[in-house]
Amino acid sequence: MSSKDELLAKANQPSAEALRLHPFYRGKVQTMLKCPVRTFDDFSIWYTPGVAAPCKAIQADPNLAYEYTNKANTVAVVTDGTRVLGLGNIGAQAGMPVMEGKALLFKYLGGVDAVPLCLDTEDADDIIRTVRLIQPTYGGINLEDIAQPKCFRVLDTLRADPTMQIPVFHDDQQGTATVLLAGLLNALKVTNRDIRNTRFALVGLGAANVATLRLLEASGVALEQIIATDSRGILHRDRSDIAAQAEDYPDKWRACLGSNPDDVRGGIAEALSGAEVCIAFAQPGPGTIKPEWVAGMAPDSIVFPCSNPVPEIWPWEAKEAGARIVGTGRSDFPNQLNNSLGFPAIFRGALDVRARTITDEMCLAAAAEIAAYGEELGLDDDHLVPTMEHEDIFPREAAAVGAKAVEQGLARNNATRDELYTMAQVKIAEARDMITTLMASGGIRPVPEI
Amino acid sequence: MSSKDELLAKANQPSAEALRLHPFYRGKVQTMLKCPVRTFDDFSIWYTPGVAAPCKAIQADPNLAYEYTNKANTVAVVTDGTRVLGLGNIGAQAGMPVMEGKALLFKYLGGVDAVPLCLDTEDADDIIRTVRLIQPTYGGINLEDIAQPKCFRVLDTLRADPTMQIPVFHDDQQGTATVLLAGLLNALKVTNRDIRNTRFALVGLGAANVATLRLLEASGVALEQIIATDSRGILHRDRSDIAAQAEDYPDKWRACLGSNPDDVRGGIAEALSGAEVCIAFAQPGPGTIKPEWVAGMAPDSIVFPCSNPVPEIWPWEAKEAGARIVGTGRSDFPNQLNNSLGFPAIFRGALDVRARTITDEMCLAAAAEIAAYGEELGLDDDHLVPTMEHEDIFPREAAAVGAKAVEQGLARNNATRDELYTMAQVKIAEARDMITTLMASGGIRPVPEI
Repeated sequence: MSSKDELLAKANQPSAEALRLHPFYRGKVQTMLKCPVRTFDDFSIWYTPGVAAPCKAIQADPNLAYEYTNKANTVAVVTDGTRVLGLGNIGAQAGMPVMEGKALLFKYLGGVDAVPLCLDTEDADDIIRTVRLIQPTYGGINLEDIAQPKCFRVLDTLRADPTMQIPVFHDDQQGTATVLLAGLLNALKVTNRDIRNTRFALVGLGAANVATLRLLEASGVALEQIIATDSRGILHRDRSDIAAQAEDYPDKWRACLGSNPDDVRGGIAEALSGAEVCIAFAQPGPGTIKPEWVAGMAPDSIVFPCSNPVPEIWPWEAKEAGARIVGTGRSDFPNQLNNSLGFPAIFRGALDVRARTITDEMCLAAAAEIAAYGEELGLDDDHLVPTMEHEDIFPREAAAVGAKAVEQGLARNNATRDELYTMAQVKIAEARDMITTLMASGGIRPVPEI
Repeated sequence: MSSKDELLAKANQPSAEALRLHPFYRGKVQTMLKCPVRTFDDFSIWYTPGVAAPCKAIQADPNLAYEYTNKANTVAVVTDGTRVLGLGNIGAQAGMPVMEGKALLFKYLGGVDAVPLCLDTEDADDIIRTVRLIQPTYGGINLEDIAQPKCFRVLDTLRADPTMQIPVFHDDQQGTATVLLAGLLNALKVTNRDIRNTRFALVGLGAANVATLRLLEASGVALEQIIATDSRGILHRDRSDIAAQAEDYPDKWRACLGSNPDDVRGGIAEALSGAEVCIAFAQPGPGTIKPEWVAGMAPDSIVFPCSNPVPEIWPWEAKEAGARIVGTGRSDFPNQLNNSLGFPAIFRGALDVRARTITDEMCLAAAAEIAAYGEELGLDDDHLVPTMEHEDIFPREAAAVGAKAVEQGLARNNATRDELYTMAQVKIAEARDMITTLMASGGIRPVPEI
């Protein structure tokens, strides 16, 4: 097992390569044609005068935009740069490399055409207004790296807005929680637990854990099974600081009122005492969660310290302290609970049925499919969920998400689950084939030697 | 020469192909990777954790966004869909096929990564506010198909806004006028005229001719040399209807006061009487301009009926009525004055020097370079400007535009004209090579047989 220094050295390698290669490529995504140009005469089909015909058709029936343009496959990755990775509020301009990276993952993993949209504002209403204005262009909106509590209001307002005809999704909330839930479902199977009577500690109640809280409840967990903490300690009904901000933090206040029925007071130590599952999205560690606190958990405990780049406790420390199953956000430990398993396929499915929204039920369907695939691969303490290398996860998950949207009456395209699986498989394969082709031709240049 | 019926039949062919092929391709542009994915490990360079390093670098120096992301090569094609082609206000959603077509032309002709951005609004302030908000993402903004008088206020406000650090360009104004001016400059050469004592009639004073008026003035034409018309007839100082809207139409009101020194009254017939040059961007013809009116122009007259898809007067009618030189917007007649000769290279040049704006002088430099290339190819009545097939026009024009920006102190990158030429040539070639590669591999599917 690696020491902390080795791990940090390893964690710094990607930074050095990123600083070398970002200026070499000057961007990670570009615009490419989707249709051929045989001769310049084709411009009269793709542009004036021929293009007037599809324009008029869409004017007569706006749904034809899904047939005649790339709207059906296009997602805007929208940020104000107020909470980028673990870097905090670095601003919209500095958020660009992340949004481009997200667009790259969308294409490579989901066959989705995503474009960055970094907004020079910190105002929630600016973000809400802009998303409303841009919806003709896109099949969906992926909110990204927006600080709390703003992100709750932006997402909740737009999801509840009847004028929004396309899904709005906040990956740091819904996407993160979906993949976490998948890992949790299988960890409960491995440890023979029923989610309905398992005791949970949620450490940190920011965007990710608020969404986790919602998905847990939607999965049958009662608030009474939960103890949650934030930077000031355990949530309880006397948390006047949260009561004062109940409008900005509605779920947090709800948790104050409904969770922690024994009215435990204290911090993470007390929250973990006797808990069976710890889900942490708090301050990057190590040391945020101490080994002795994990030692105080129930036997066969499940610990998910998910902060990036460094988990709240090193996995080996958690294991030595008695945790049976540990999962983190990192690829260099077992049980990586990685967002990339979520958003590309969730959007693939939502886009392929032309969904009007992405519901919690669609996220649960995604989590269930990830968990099911993990189970098929064989579960044990160190193997809860598939990795990105298990490529079939993406079309499977997309089909599950799309089928759920159809079932919920939220789809414009009522394809069957089999059709959706094939559709997703083809689109993802086409995307990767084009990338492979351009890498082979030199259109995408090879990485220069150091 | 074709009859009207044959021409209309020919004009309908692209519509039929467009209606067949738009649903086949379901979009004309997509997102493509610009950097390779060798293994999934590369995600740690392009995304977290490695991506944090370029983010922090941009936070420290925002200009590094031009080095570390694709901002430097990316343009948003922004519309509200209120004046799409000749179709009028068809709305933002129905404008998508045009904006995608524009993005296709940007890539193919200029190597520029353009993305559509269709805004669900008709309010000028919404457009202005949105453009301000989105500027971290883009190297430039191309406004498109926005109705007048709104388009004047949107462009003028954003160009004058000191917080706008990237160029904002309205192709229907500046782009159209630039290519028109190139044709005009060479028509004046062919007919041995000096622009400073030529009599102009501007027929229609919408977006295109207002911009033409500005560029004519910047080229040394005095308002006194001009008679202009709008749908109510000739502009003169007693046009109280325009006076009442002087704030919305500042250039038009200026023309009322300064043009038409002999105080001619009437319509197009009277405006053309004795004029040496007719520049029309008015109602599509035929019949908007009558042959007998052209017959009333000065000898060796120059007539540019530029409405699309049908010019204000058919070219053969204008010639039979005595015009010496005729140019239109159409590719099936001589002297096509085509926007596509303008915007891809103007933006290529502006982006390559990282210009803060696109000035009238930069447009004049583009027009002069188009004209110079036309002259090198050999001028005669039917050959004023190069066509898109003369591919060298794009890097030449880009270099001229970029060099002018450097000269004006508006560039962040002070490359030489030779460097700019090479840079543009390489980028355009790379774009076309990738398209060719994907057409050959089937990534861009072949056009299906009928």
